[in-house]
Amino acid sequence: MHEPREEHIALCKQARDLLFLGARTANSFSDAPVPDEQVRAIYELIKYAPTSMNQQPLRIVLLRTTSARSRLVAQLAPANKGKSEQAPLVALLAADLHFHDTLPEVFPHAPGARDLYANSEVRERSAVFNATLQLGYFILGVRAAGLCAGPIVGYDEDGINRAFFPDGSRRVIAVVNIGLPGAAPWQERLPRLSYEAVVSIA
Amino acid sequence: MHEPREEHIALCKQARDLLFLGARTANSFSDAPVPDEQVRAIYELIKYAPTSMNQQPLRIVLLRTTSARSRLVAQLAPANKGKSEQAPLVALLAADLHFHDTLPEVFPHAPGARDLYANSEVRERSAVFNATLQLGYFILGVRAAGLCAGPIVGYDEDGINRAFFPDGSRRVIAVVNIGLPGAAPWQERLPRLSYEAVVSIA
Repeated sequence: MHEPREEHIALCKQARDLLFLGARTANSFSDAPVPDEQVRAIYELIKYAPTSMNQQPLRIVLLRTTSARSRLVAQLAPANKGKSEQAPLVALLAADLHFHDTLPEVFPHAPGARDLYANSEVRERSAVFNATLQLGYFILGVRAAGLCAGPIVGYDEDGINRAFFPDGSRRVIAVVNIGLPGAAPWQERLPRLSYEAVVSIA
Repeated sequence: MHEPREEHIALCKQARDLLFLGARTANSFSDAPVPDEQVRAIYELIKYAPTSMNQQPLRIVLLRTTSARSRLVAQLAPANKGKSEQAPLVALLAADLHFHDTLPEVFPHAPGARDLYANSEVRERSAVFNATLQLGYFILGVRAAGLCAGPIVGYDEDGINRAFFPDGSRRVIAVVNIGLPGAAPWQERLPRLSYEAVVSIA
C-alpha cells in the first residue's frame, strides 16, 4: 500500500498533497519575497497545536537584515551556506529557556506550574523537547502557506547561541529557509521506511 | 488578528479546522476502536515529512494486549493512568537509537553517513531530536485521520524504557492516546502566546 486508504483519512486530497505527499524540502528558492504577514498567518495557524502543559517554548527570529543573515551564514556548515544566502527568508528557531515565566499566563489553573521548572536542567530539557515538537508543526505550517521549507541543523550550535542569544536565554533548535522553490530545488525523493519497519504491536 | 488571512494560507478551511483551529487534545475517548489499518494510513501519510539526513528514527508500538497496556499504565503519573486505561488505542512512541544502521538504505548517496553516528551520544541526541520532530507530524497525522490525540509525557521514563526496551535499543519519546472524543473530553482552550511574543525580527 503506497497511498493512505481514503476511508481511514479525513483530510482532503488537496491538503494531503500540500502537506505530505507532494511536499518537498527545498534547497533553492525563487526570488519571491515572504512577507512578515505570511509568517504571522503561519503562526496563527500552528500556535494551536499542543505542547506539554501548554509551554509553547518555540521562538522565531526572522533574519531580515544583511548583517543578521551574515552572522548566521558564518555559523553554518559549508554545504548549507549557499542555501541560506539565497533563500528569500531565513528563520532562526530557538527554545526559550525561560518559558516557565509564561506558565502563570498560559497554564493559569495550576498556580504551582512555574515551580516545577525551577531546576534549569529539567527546564532546558522540556524547552528543547517542546520547541522541537513545534518545529514539526512549523515546517507543516510553512507548507500550509503554500511555501517550501528547508530545515537545517548542520551548523555550529554554540556559535549561533553566542551570536544571537549571548545572555543564554535561548538555544537554537533549527534554521529554516523559506520561500517558493527555485531552479532544480530538489533531487529524487529518498526512500521512506516501511510501516512494518516502524510500527509493531505488543 | 485571530484567524490566518486567507490570501496567505493555501491550505483549505476544512484542513485548517481539522488539524489546528478546531482540533483539541482529548482526555476521554469513546469506545469506537482504532484499527491497525487506520494507523497504517496515518503512517503512510506522515512518513514523507522531513527528518535530518532522512533518519526517520521514530518507532511506534501499539499496545493491543491487556498485559502491555498494564505495564505501560504502571509507569504513568497518577493523573495520566485513567486516560490511557480508557483510550481505545495507546501508542508508545520511541526513538530508535540504532537508526544509523538504516542510513545505507534511506540515505544511499552518502556512503559515509552511518559513520557520522558512530558516537553513541551524538547518535542518541539526533535520534531523540528527529523522533520528537516526527511526534509532531504524528499528532497532526492522527488528527488528519479524523481522530483525537492525547499525548502524554508524564511518566517514569526509565521505567518505560526498562519495561519495553530492556536491550537499550530505544528510548521513549511520548505516549499517545488515540480515539474519538468521549464525554467531556476537554476543558476550555488554554491561551496561546501572541505573534509578538514569539516572533522577532533581526
